[in-house]
Amino acid sequence: MAATYTQPVQALIDELGRLPGIGPKSAQRIAFHLLKAPTGDVTRLSHSISDAKARVRFCSRCFNFAEGDLCPICLDDRRSAQVLCVVEESSDIVALEKTGEFHGRYHVLLGAMSPLEGIGPEQLKIKELFARIGAEGVEEVILCTNPNTEGEVTALYIARMLKPFDIRVTRIASGLPVGGDLEYADELTLGRALTGRRDISA
Amino acid sequence: MAATYTQPVQALIDELGRLPGIGPKSAQRIAFHLLKAPTGDVTRLSHSISDAKARVRFCSRCFNFAEGDLCPICLDDRRSAQVLCVVEESSDIVALEKTGEFHGRYHVLLGAMSPLEGIGPEQLKIKELFARIGAEGVEEVILCTNPNTEGEVTALYIARMLKPFDIRVTRIASGLPVGGDLEYADELTLGRALTGRRDISA
Repeated sequence: MAATYTQPVQALIDELGRLPGIGPKSAQRIAFHLLKAPTGDVTRLSHSISDAKARVRFCSRCFNFAEGDLCPICLDDRRSAQVLCVVEESSDIVALEKTGEFHGRYHVLLGAMSPLEGIGPEQLKIKELFARIGAEGVEEVILCTNPNTEGEVTALYIARMLKPFDIRVTRIASGLPVGGDLEYADELTLGRALTGRRDISA
Repeated sequence: MAATYTQPVQALIDELGRLPGIGPKSAQRIAFHLLKAPTGDVTRLSHSISDAKARVRFCSRCFNFAEGDLCPICLDDRRSAQVLCVVEESSDIVALEKTGEFHGRYHVLLGAMSPLEGIGPEQLKIKELFARIGAEGVEEVILCTNPNTEGEVTALYIARMLKPFDIRVTRIASGLPVGGDLEYADELTLGRALTGRRDISA
């Protein structure tokens, strides 16, 4: 009596179940979808995985995704080396680039400090950040880690370690989102928005 | 200014986003996970996809997953051909096999009727089911589609079409789950449990 799937199906479900945010039920659903889908579609998925893995590495300077040694941003010599924006992940670079407000370089930490998950400064690209400060003539470091516990702890740690370097260290502003509603803001955000208030010259 | 990811990363996110239940955020999360993961793990995933796709097909008789022409259950000649259990998906076979209560054969419809999604009887393996009735000497068909709208409609449709065949057609029982609590049962289930009450011989 066969109480499980044939081996290749079970192997596929197991592998899919190892992905973040994919439980056993979703893994099964995706596996069934793939087995029913046209072979072309499935080949495209499997190829895109191996292709990305083979072609993409981390930029040797800033740890953004790169196809060569350096990422497109580090290769762009119109970008200022004086201002360095520190982020947790490459996805944050995409978000920041969309604003069109930043013209310096980035440094990707590849995560944030999280004692609960056993992620300390050594697991992040923090040592590499300090090495860049002198080498590239950085004058300001903007700490753009997420405004949550892990991101705040990481920003605070880096700020403290950057003290001896005599450069400007700033933190991205927390406050009310544009288009938001004061009434619906949580107290923490509202509190931050108050503390971070700025003079207006009218 | 690079406002998106390098091409292989974007392609990977796009392909992952086409999977059922995977939104753009999850696709990005999984893509980042894969790019950071050890190459061996990623190769195993990509291989398991192409391997399953290459080796697994549908059983030519019952449309369960199979590695050859027939699935392990159809190949097992200890299983009775007289009783046929009709299910929506291969996953239902796994669930039913775990009970150890059924020793006949299965027929997988590969879905359920759903007018909203444009799935009619022609999209399901219903024609193939009728062909089996005479050919295999089936004496009873147990309709084991899900106890939801789509499953009920499908069961009703098949039951009606099986009328001319002068065989026993049954529907899996709906009622209270074993170990459940009457108080917390929804009215529909409780209603079904009442209607489906059985004599007990004590």
